[in-house]
Amino acid sequence: MNHFVHDKGLCESTDIGAGTRIWAFAHVLPGARIGADCNVCDNVYVENDVVVGDRVTIKCGVQLWDGVRLADDVFVGPNVTFTNDPFPRSKAYPEKFAQTVVGPGASLGANCTILPGVTIGRRAMVGAGAVVTKDVPPNAIVVGNPARIVGYVDAGGGEPDTESAVAGVLPASRVPGVELLELTRADDLRGSLVAANFEQDLPFVPRRFFTVFGVPSTDVRGAHAHRKCHQMLVCVQGSVNAVVDDGRSRQEFVLDRPDVGLHMAPMIWGTQYRYSADAVLLVLASDPYDADDYIRDHDTFLAETAHRERVGA
Amino acid sequence: MNHFVHDKGLCESTDIGAGTRIWAFAHVLPGARIGADCNVCDNVYVENDVVVGDRVTIKCGVQLWDGVRLADDVFVGPNVTFTNDPFPRSKAYPEKFAQTVVGPGASLGANCTILPGVTIGRRAMVGAGAVVTKDVPPNAIVVGNPARIVGYVDAGGGEPDTESAVAGVLPASRVPGVELLELTRADDLRGSLVAANFEQDLPFVPRRFFTVFGVPSTDVRGAHAHRKCHQMLVCVQGSVNAVVDDGRSRQEFVLDRPDVGLHMAPMIWGTQYRYSADAVLLVLASDPYDADDYIRDHDTFLAETAHRERVGA
Amino acid sequence: MNHFVHDKGLCESTDIGAGTRIWAFAHVLPGARIGADCNVCDNVYVENDVVVGDRVTIKCGVQLWDGVRLADDVFVGPNVTFTNDPFPRSKAYPEKFAQTVVGPGASLGANCTILPGVTIGRRAMVGAGAVVTKDVPPNAIVVGNPARIVGYVDAGGGEPDTESAVAGVLPASRVPGVELLELTRADDLRGSLVAANFEQDLPFVPRRFFTVFGVPSTDVRGAHAHRKCHQMLVCVQGSVNAVVDDGRSRQEFVLDRPDVGLHMAPMIWGTQYRYSADAVLLVLASDPYDADDYIRDHDTFLAETAHRERVGA
Amino acid sequence: MNHFVHDKGLCESTDIGAGTRIWAFAHVLPGARIGADCNVCDNVYVENDVVVGDRVTIKCGVQLWDGVRLADDVFVGPNVTFTNDPFPRSKAYPEKFAQTVVGPGASLGANCTILPGVTIGRRAMVGAGAVVTKDVPPNAIVVGNPARIVGYVDAGGGEPDTESAVAGVLPASRVPGVELLELTRADDLRGSLVAANFEQDLPFVPRRFFTVFGVPSTDVRGAHAHRKCHQMLVCVQGSVNAVVDDGRSRQEFVLDRPDVGLHMAPMIWGTQYRYSADAVLLVLASDPYDADDYIRDHDTFLAETAHRERVGA
Amino acid sequence: MNHFVHDKGLCESTDIGAGTRIWAFAHVLPGARIGADCNVCDNVYVENDVVVGDRVTIKCGVQLWDGVRLADDVFVGPNVTFTNDPFPRSKAYPEKFAQTVVGPGASLGANCTILPGVTIGRRAMVGAGAVVTKDVPPNAIVVGNPARIVGYVDAGGGEPDTESAVAGVLPASRVPGVELLELTRADDLRGSLVAANFEQDLPFVPRRFFTVFGVPSTDVRGAHAHRKCHQMLVCVQGSVNAVVDDGRSRQEFVLDRPDVGLHMAPMIWGTQYRYSADAVLLVLASDPYDADDYIRDHDTFLAETAHRERVGA
Amino acid sequence: MNHFVHDKGLCESTDIGAGTRIWAFAHVLPGARIGADCNVCDNVYVENDVVVGDRVTIKCGVQLWDGVRLADDVFVGPNVTFTNDPFPRSKAYPEKFAQTVVGPGASLGANCTILPGVTIGRRAMVGAGAVVTKDVPPNAIVVGNPARIVGYVDAGGGEPDTESAVAGVLPASRVPGVELLELTRADDLRGSLVAANFEQDLPFVPRRFFTVFGVPSTDVRGAHAHRKCHQMLVCVQGSVNAVVDDGRSRQEFVLDRPDVGLHMAPMIWGTQYRYSADAVLLVLASDPYDADDYIRDHDTFLAETAHRERVGA
Repeated sequence: MNHFVHDKGLCESTDIGAGTRIWAFAHVLPGARIGADCNVCDNVYVENDVVVGDRVTIKCGVQLWDGVRLADDVFVGPNVTFTNDPFPRSKAYPEKFAQTVVGPGASLGANCTILPGVTIGRRAMVGAGAVVTKDVPPNAIVVGNPARIVGYVDAGGGEPDTESAVAGVLPASRVPGVELLELTRADDLRGSLVAANFEQDLPFVPRRFFTVFGVPSTDVRGAHAHRKCHQMLVCVQGSVNAVVDDGRSRQEFVLDRPDVGLHMAPMIWGTQYRYSADAVLLVLASDPYDADDYIRDHDTFLAETAHRERVGA
Repeated sequence: MNHFVHDKGLCESTDIGAGTRIWAFAHVLPGARIGADCNVCDNVYVENDVVVGDRVTIKCGVQLWDGVRLADDVFVGPNVTFTNDPFPRSKAYPEKFAQTVVGPGASLGANCTILPGVTIGRRAMVGAGAVVTKDVPPNAIVVGNPARIVGYVDAGGGEPDTESAVAGVLPASRVPGVELLELTRADDLRGSLVAANFEQDLPFVPRRFFTVFGVPSTDVRGAHAHRKCHQMLVCVQGSVNAVVDDGRSRQEFVLDRPDVGLHMAPMIWGTQYRYSADAVLLVLASDPYDADDYIRDHDTFLAETAHRERVGA
Repeated sequence: MNHFVHDKGLCESTDIGAGTRIWAFAHVLPGARIGADCNVCDNVYVENDVVVGDRVTIKCGVQLWDGVRLADDVFVGPNVTFTNDPFPRSKAYPEKFAQTVVGPGASLGANCTILPGVTIGRRAMVGAGAVVTKDVPPNAIVVGNPARIVGYVDAGGGEPDTESAVAGVLPASRVPGVELLELTRADDLRGSLVAANFEQDLPFVPRRFFTVFGVPSTDVRGAHAHRKCHQMLVCVQGSVNAVVDDGRSRQEFVLDRPDVGLHMAPMIWGTQYRYSADAVLLVLASDPYDADDYIRDHDTFLAETAHRERVGA
Repeated sequence: MNHFVHDKGLCESTDIGAGTRIWAFAHVLPGARIGADCNVCDNVYVENDVVVGDRVTIKCGVQLWDGVRLADDVFVGPNVTFTNDPFPRSKAYPEKFAQTVVGPGASLGANCTILPGVTIGRRAMVGAGAVVTKDVPPNAIVVGNPARIVGYVDAGGGEPDTESAVAGVLPASRVPGVELLELTRADDLRGSLVAANFEQDLPFVPRRFFTVFGVPSTDVRGAHAHRKCHQMLVCVQGSVNAVVDDGRSRQEFVLDRPDVGLHMAPMIWGTQYRYSADAVLLVLASDPYDADDYIRDHDTFLAETAHRERVGA
Repeated sequence: MNHFVHDKGLCESTDIGAGTRIWAFAHVLPGARIGADCNVCDNVYVENDVVVGDRVTIKCGVQLWDGVRLADDVFVGPNVTFTNDPFPRSKAYPEKFAQTVVGPGASLGANCTILPGVTIGRRAMVGAGAVVTKDVPPNAIVVGNPARIVGYVDAGGGEPDTESAVAGVLPASRVPGVELLELTRADDLRGSLVAANFEQDLPFVPRRFFTVFGVPSTDVRGAHAHRKCHQMLVCVQGSVNAVVDDGRSRQEFVLDRPDVGLHMAPMIWGTQYRYSADAVLLVLASDPYDADDYIRDHDTFLAETAHRERVGA
Repeated sequence: MNHFVHDKGLCESTDIGAGTRIWAFAHVLPGARIGADCNVCDNVYVENDVVVGDRVTIKCGVQLWDGVRLADDVFVGPNVTFTNDPFPRSKAYPEKFAQTVVGPGASLGANCTILPGVTIGRRAMVGAGAVVTKDVPPNAIVVGNPARIVGYVDAGGGEPDTESAVAGVLPASRVPGVELLELTRADDLRGSLVAANFEQDLPFVPRRFFTVFGVPSTDVRGAHAHRKCHQMLVCVQGSVNAVVDDGRSRQEFVLDRPDVGLHMAPMIWGTQYRYSADAVLLVLASDPYDADDYIRDHDTFLAETAHRERVGA
């Protein structure tokens, strides 16, 4: 055996990876599978039908119930609490326990609670003390009870670009394929008007429009990429946060002016969230609706961008 | 002389049309020009620099000051009060009196007040007791102090098409070249989405968009026609009243659903008013902006539609 | 002839009552009927189909058009403007002019405007400069453009009973058959409760309830009396003004506490107005609905109360 | 001994029921009383003055402090945290520890926190991560920090009867003795009116009314049954959720129309909650107030309904 | 006689000043006093107890009732309607008619209505169609029904100093003795703070403060000058318009920033109006309260400033 | 060794004070320093770089990570969860762990979560289940997720002085050097005015003012004492809670009337919190701003008050 078990710990499983350490008062049941180089701290309890990847940290006071799946590089903070039965009653068991999946590189903050059946996306970050009741998208940061998205990892969302704002200058894009456009605007006593001639003023010719509105403010819309379609987002009323991601870098913009368009070229993963109550998002798209043009799975998106890069696309 | 002056009336002008009657205690100064078949009632006073068309009715207690111009078929109710100096002081005279113009067929309701320099459009209707502080567009109905537009003559605005509304059916257009389109809409717990593919779903292919917002609710936007350009109006937030007019008939629509588009073909005079505070109007247009394509004067519009009709356009 | 016409006035009617005076620059057309002891001031104009009662005052600058009917003791202020065509166009006449009726003892304030077809109730008071667009109930005071009811004559509405309010004491009723009842109320952290046992706590046993809500605040509800039915009004949310009237005296109460009931015995004319936007009025009635129990005409009500008094009812 | 203690567990009490299992790193102090067929998981800690019923599940990481009382069939999720001192200071002890009581069949979700002295009702359900600061009524579901009632077990509250709502049809009652009544309603431009004649329109003749208002929206009002009294609830403003329960089945109605009455016959346990801020609930009752007619304890209610059933009442 | 009467006019008074003209269908009763160089137009009616100053213009259709007093240089527009009985009933006369006073140089716009007993201040301007129900301060401009102050003559109120506003620069004072001060302000995430050390930062040392709040937005507060006291006004919440006047020039400031103080030296007539609903005005004064330091009458103020000027104060 | 370790506990540190007890399944790592008379309960885990004072209680299920510092007399409730890395990722370690400091006598309620780097002030009280994301001031009581201040220990904040409120009497101060002053107030239809002459009406002569506004309602402003400066606080709009503290006793006032001033003599520790959204606090101070006059550290304040007492100041 290439793993370590503290002499006050108890490991009944034989499926433990090399370099993994199991500490005092921890208890791993038979059948549990734990990868290599993991750290299972004091007072952790692992049931039978559990699968843990490599390089996972599980801090003190955590239980992994039947049905929990932790991918590689997951961090589980102290006293994090998993569940596997949405409506528990003593001595009443569901036919099958709900499966909880935590994606690669995700972190679960101290003392957070994960409701049954939830999926936590790749590299998402759950804040300490949060109560997670719904799926968490890749890279999202969630906090509170119930947990709400407050930002995206590495997107600079929490840090408004104050200097630009003060100067009235649009922030520069750090993500290739993305840019902010200032549209022609005229204000007078009769009201305001924003306009664009398609051929002259836009980086592509739209062939479709749609509007999004009535979004509960905590909800995420978008969260997909297009293979061929360009989009321009204009928040014509209210405000919305837009995160753009080309698979390598990520940036967050607050769209809160009706005369600013956000152009996203193909193969940009776009996420919109924090809709204000009155937000109306106008989207102009370069192509008619085509379901096959959508990439809705972030891992597929990462694979395709990596492939394109390799083949020089 | 083919006109009549009551023996207790006083007419010092010689420029009075045939069939016109001037009644008791009325007083017309030298130089005033009054057309044929007019009725100038008791206690009316007409200054020198005044021009009145044919078939005009001027009820009791009205004064027409220097600078007033009444076109043919105007009705002036009792005690209607004109003005010609925006900031009157005793014994202080402006260099030139403001000119007040009342268009053909317009009616001024009893006891209304018309501020200096105002133009009242063709067949407009000013409500009794109104105080008119701004120009009144053709066919508009205005009431109150200050006067606000509440509808358009013959447009059915005051009479919502209740039957349609109850049944959830879009009202039928009575104006050729105009139609309401129901756009694809999807509502779910994450919010709502309205979409249109340009080639498939719209009666023309847009090459420009603009949005109108922040309109003070009593103001009119639009009020013009296009010679060649098609437009589709979608009120993506709030509500706005749209009046359409092909020169022969007129109809008013309340645009208050984000999934309804109002298509206006070329040579439709369109007026939008009664913007709700949060209204955002999205307009898709078939052509890039071209100042020469706009007809901004209603009389020109009527002339062009009449001409097109004669030549069979 | 027992009436007087100024030598600069012009009276073409022969149907003028004794003691009536017609002043300079006034003009009465043939057929007009004017009662006794009236005063028709300078610059007044009276058309043919007009009927004026006794003791009526018509100040300068007023016109009475075909269809105007003024009852006895009416006061018409200077420059008051009547109308008889709701949608006037020059040389276009309605089949029949709208009739405007002003009830006995009513007063029309200076420079007010009366729209066609309106009825002004007995002893109502129209404020100076008002524009009256709807019928005015008996005794109501209206002001503004458009005119709104702001009180009732002799009902003390404009004068809140401040002393009582400060002391938290219910105001005493001055109208026999009317009283305010304080209902049992319990407030605690869980909310508030108001209750009444019918037999013990109310002056009659209810056999019907109704609620009134969603009343545009300027509108009047009620305005009728019952011959046999008792009512108790409780404003369970918001506030409403209630005027009570036994045919001799009148009083106005502001109902704005959910624990106060207003009991109205039979033969009390009750009017409710100034509903706040959120007002909900609960009414408990001593009898099932019976259309014959309602007196909806104020003159009938006055006649019946006078009769009851004579016969000692 | 008919119970099991893991060899890494530590049980110092002798009062453990048959079939109960105590697992690794669990520690039960002397004097603690635990019933039969319980499951005491890893890392659980049980103090001396604790009483646990039969068939109770206590998941990992839980401590039961002096003063905790768990009835039969209780489920305690992982890392659930009890307390027994409302204002703890190190080395300062209250005279007596607060007692926390969890009723039969209740479940405490993972990682929830229970404040000292709280009582959790029979079969109530505390959501994962909730912080319970007040008593929880029988069958209530609570979530959040602080915990609020969001529904009732088996009452269908979370699932609005969409089909009925769309069709404008009142939902059918599934609880005998309960029905929804549509009251006569008249809407016109002057506002709305809802009415009922007592003898004709209601299933009982009211002899009392009360109104409830100003309820903080998270609070519960009602929560009792009557032995003889009928009630009709009308939410005349705003909305309120009403749960009815005849001891066998339970149903939840949203009362949000002023023209709908909810009739509850005697021996229906009624609970009202989720009052909107502006809610006003009108209740008509068949009998004057009588304290002896109220059943305020749910267990008593269950006993009486069971008895009535047995004797065929 | 040095005045003119049209041969269709009727003048029964002998107290008419030189150069005054009385036109057709006008009627002046015995006892009326009219000054020199006045113009009394067609259809004007003047009762007995009326006093009119010099250089007054009275346009057509106006009546001056017993009790009306017009100072020199007043302008009365066409169809302006005066009143002298607040609650008129036919044949019922008040003991004494209310007196209406119009100050020197004031103008009454066309068709406005003046309620009984009102005083219109020196050089005030009443808008066309207004209904004046309360006294109008000197130089105020009022419009609407009921009339509200919308600005002050020559104070530039209607013309915000846009250039300054855009640049964030305080507008310069054009009135000697008045200046705007920018106070030290610190904003951070914890909120905002505005501060001033009395000796260092203010042009005088305060010895008194007062706050003004809860002002109905149409009301005027202030409207007085101090003989010795300095004042600094800071609008710490909301906004208020402040007009300053040194007897020669006048200027209007919008105080809407909590970090701007308006210093008014002694002998500045200050008027504050257009309080926003939430406005709180903090005033620091250089002296304790002293009733004798107030000049509350604008004419007295003008006399004192003229005197100070003459004596070189 | 004068401390106790349960035979199922594990203590690898030698730096444990006399009288301290370490219980079953607890684990203390080498290097950890724990004072005297502490209680380290079951399942507690203490890392190496941890310092714990005397008389500290650490209930079950708690981990003390590297960087945690607990002063004397701290209470740590069951399952309380500390953290030391604001953005944890598995196998990625910060250069230095964030230090969490808990002041003397503070209590951390059951199952609360403490974010990295937070300081909890002396005798503060963290509610059960709270998630503490910011520093907690001395004596503050915080609850919720995220935690907000809801009161101050021993300040009577949660218990409004109802009797005084009902009688309209200002509550009496229990803290020497503090008093509430009722300022002169005048209300009339034109609005309200509150005034004070400095010499006559205030207990000191102000030489500075500042206003505080725009405070997010959960934030604390103030929280300092002055050595020489007097202050008077007037909440001129909205409301704010003010806690005063002379080092021995503490009292909380709700300032919600614009005519009440709170006088704080020198050496009073003042804290303001619970600002309403519209709150504007006016402060008059006896001295110009002087940074050296501020005591911003509560421990320094306690030391200085103790010193002054000793020397009889």
